[in-house]
Amino acid sequence: MAPTHSPASEDSARYTRGLAKLREIDGDAGQRVIDALAPIAPDFARYLIEFPFGDIYTRPELDLKSREIATVAALTALGNAAPQLKVHVHGALNVGCSRQEVVEIMMQMAVYAGFPAALNGLFAAQEVFAQRDAPPVAQTP
Amino acid sequence: MAPTHSPASEDSARYTRGLAKLREIDGDAGQRVIDALAPIAPDFARYLIEFPFGDIYTRPELDLKSREIATVAALTALGNAAPQLKVHVHGALNVGCSRQEVVEIMMQMAVYAGFPAALNGLFAAQEVFAQRDAPPVAQTP
Amino acid sequence: MAPTHSPASEDSARYTRGLAKLREIDGDAGQRVIDALAPIAPDFARYLIEFPFGDIYTRPELDLKSREIATVAALTALGNAAPQLKVHVHGALNVGCSRQEVVEIMMQMAVYAGFPAALNGLFAAQEVFAQRDAPPVAQTP
Amino acid sequence: MAPTHSPASEDSARYTRGLAKLREIDGDAGQRVIDALAPIAPDFARYLIEFPFGDIYTRPELDLKSREIATVAALTALGNAAPQLKVHVHGALNVGCSRQEVVEIMMQMAVYAGFPAALNGLFAAQEVFAQRDAPPVAQTP
Amino acid sequence: MAPTHSPASEDSARYTRGLAKLREIDGDAGQRVIDALAPIAPDFARYLIEFPFGDIYTRPELDLKSREIATVAALTALGNAAPQLKVHVHGALNVGCSRQEVVEIMMQMAVYAGFPAALNGLFAAQEVFAQRDAPPVAQTP
Amino acid sequence: MAPTHSPASEDSARYTRGLAKLREIDGDAGQRVIDALAPIAPDFARYLIEFPFGDIYTRPELDLKSREIATVAALTALGNAAPQLKVHVHGALNVGCSRQEVVEIMMQMAVYAGFPAALNGLFAAQEVFAQRDAPPVAQTP
Repeated sequence: MAPTHSPASEDSARYTRGLAKLREIDGDAGQRVIDALAPIAPDFARYLIEFPFGDIYTRPELDLKSREIATVAALTALGNAAPQLKVHVHGALNVGCSRQEVVEIMMQMAVYAGFPAALNGLFAAQEVFAQRDAPPVAQTP
Repeated sequence: MAPTHSPASEDSARYTRGLAKLREIDGDAGQRVIDALAPIAPDFARYLIEFPFGDIYTRPELDLKSREIATVAALTALGNAAPQLKVHVHGALNVGCSRQEVVEIMMQMAVYAGFPAALNGLFAAQEVFAQRDAPPVAQTP
Repeated sequence: MAPTHSPASEDSARYTRGLAKLREIDGDAGQRVIDALAPIAPDFARYLIEFPFGDIYTRPELDLKSREIATVAALTALGNAAPQLKVHVHGALNVGCSRQEVVEIMMQMAVYAGFPAALNGLFAAQEVFAQRDAPPVAQTP
Repeated sequence: MAPTHSPASEDSARYTRGLAKLREIDGDAGQRVIDALAPIAPDFARYLIEFPFGDIYTRPELDLKSREIATVAALTALGNAAPQLKVHVHGALNVGCSRQEVVEIMMQMAVYAGFPAALNGLFAAQEVFAQRDAPPVAQTP
Repeated sequence: MAPTHSPASEDSARYTRGLAKLREIDGDAGQRVIDALAPIAPDFARYLIEFPFGDIYTRPELDLKSREIATVAALTALGNAAPQLKVHVHGALNVGCSRQEVVEIMMQMAVYAGFPAALNGLFAAQEVFAQRDAPPVAQTP
Repeated sequence: MAPTHSPASEDSARYTRGLAKLREIDGDAGQRVIDALAPIAPDFARYLIEFPFGDIYTRPELDLKSREIATVAALTALGNAAPQLKVHVHGALNVGCSRQEVVEIMMQMAVYAGFPAALNGLFAAQEVFAQRDAPPVAQTP
């Protein structure tokens, strides 16, 4: 339904480095989002790889752990993107944040976005921690 | 107008360590906010020192630089607290972020809160950078 | 529990034209919202028909398709009203938007409200498209 | 530029009771908003009187002071409507809230929307209090 | 996982009066939130008791019913904290609001945060009212 | 300060078509934003041209007028991006919206984001209309 506009060649470098970065941060979770988009908005899947991951996350001026701290903080504060917050809690843990650091970020958001935003962030983190503690079979939905 | 409820002694440890932390992060800017609150809500000035700075920012589980990355990200994403964002751009620079790292955080917020939020964050950062480059006399309004 | 204040006669023209407009846009979905409100806030059901649909959507200065584009864009960007967004994806399709146009609006919201808002909008649209493709029996919950 | 659609007679009762309620709450400030809208969206000025003030604020099930507490709380928490917040701080004081009660509402919003939202609310309140303390000449800009 | 920093003695007065206030407002619901936090962020459970309930809700300058009106209004308007909104609808009813007053607050939020926010608030209230009408056995999950 | 990462050649097609689209929509206003970014975040200026304008606005599946309706609606509803809203009111008028259509979009946002958001949108539109009516000399700040 959603045709692909740009010739594949045009942005292939951005796409390739974006996909690698997405895998580094999110593992399979990122790929699942891309797959879920395929039937409805394949071009948006491509943009999602190219701009956030190919352009922004690959910039060397800020390390990946700091980038995930920023993202977990922002999504917790905004409070209207629970699925993406969970993906980035995984991402933060994948690139070097400890669970305690994730919990600290969310507690701190009580100061800037209120206690409900912090609480909802903490409970999202708890779900992610439980997922990661579950035996591998349970992790493949 | 706003009476002080808790006896000074009750929370004095939180207040003292909060004030020290506020000075470490924000220098004079934090004190100016406290002073501005005095005529209207002195108890709120006290809470602001005690909870965010005495309770949260003093926790050792997350370093100060990471805390300021989280705060700058959240305030840029929320987009409705320009004065506080500027105070925390100063704070981020005071505790070890480079200007380029601040700029990177704001660029990244385009992904999570849209380009206008990122643009307004970048222009706020630019104002702060200019303030810090101005000769000391101009810095004392 | 919630008494009706205005005499039925006072605003009957607004109510009548609002109900007709609601049906034109939302078909049965609008009526289901009205019915759901009846036990808790019947006056609010009346206001919902009178102001948004009787006053605003009936104004001839902007065509219905443009109005639904505006509403789908706003609800996708705000990101905290999933049920209403789905009703208006139906509405947009009912008044002449193509599925591809709905998808384009949501993709565009990545620019103004971030990628998570756009993603959540796209997945809401996908649910609506699936509902409309399902055989009629499945459509009567 | 913006034609008036409904015949004047249709909603005259709502308009009349809305205008009276607006004056009771906001005094001249409400009228100034209406006047400011006249050149660009006169119909919206009418809707503003009819729906919020003619329909909602006139309902007897909640007293005016409680209604203004709700509005001051919501606008402080949302944090993106400073002019309207100031109008409603005036309104809250006009219908029986004390200055201290307004200050308390804003302090409480730190819990639900974060400290920056509370701070910006407090400074808006301070401006309103100063306006009301200024000699009458200064009050007529 | 999350160590407790402050010595228990330091803030015991705030904790004790906060816990009493939380119970007065929320009954068991508040305690369930505290319990849910224990495995992931026990310090945050303590902060939640100390600052919102020990510091803010115990201040005598605004009565509890007015405080709950402010909170229900703010959470309805923000629209991204459904679980906390339900807890505070219970709270509002526990400290003297009638069901009709809660409904009125939510209807009024249509003016300040839009009809979807008001609708989602009304449906949350409806759930709470149903919970309270259910036989006691069903109330103990 | 902010180095340019991608080789100029890599995305030149996106950049070129984005710049042309930006000029078509925003005329000089877009260029002024780009120029303002140059000293602080030149890469972000490039991303702003490439992704929103080179990728999204150039897609043929939705006409430019509909795209501007969506953007004006979203920015009015979000309510925290006044400078960008004004740029896009200009944009909407440049690509075929009438002033009355812009006013209608903002009035409609009262339904989805509340009256304050609509009012602030209307006053922003009024500023833009006045700018466009001013003699050309006054238009070059």
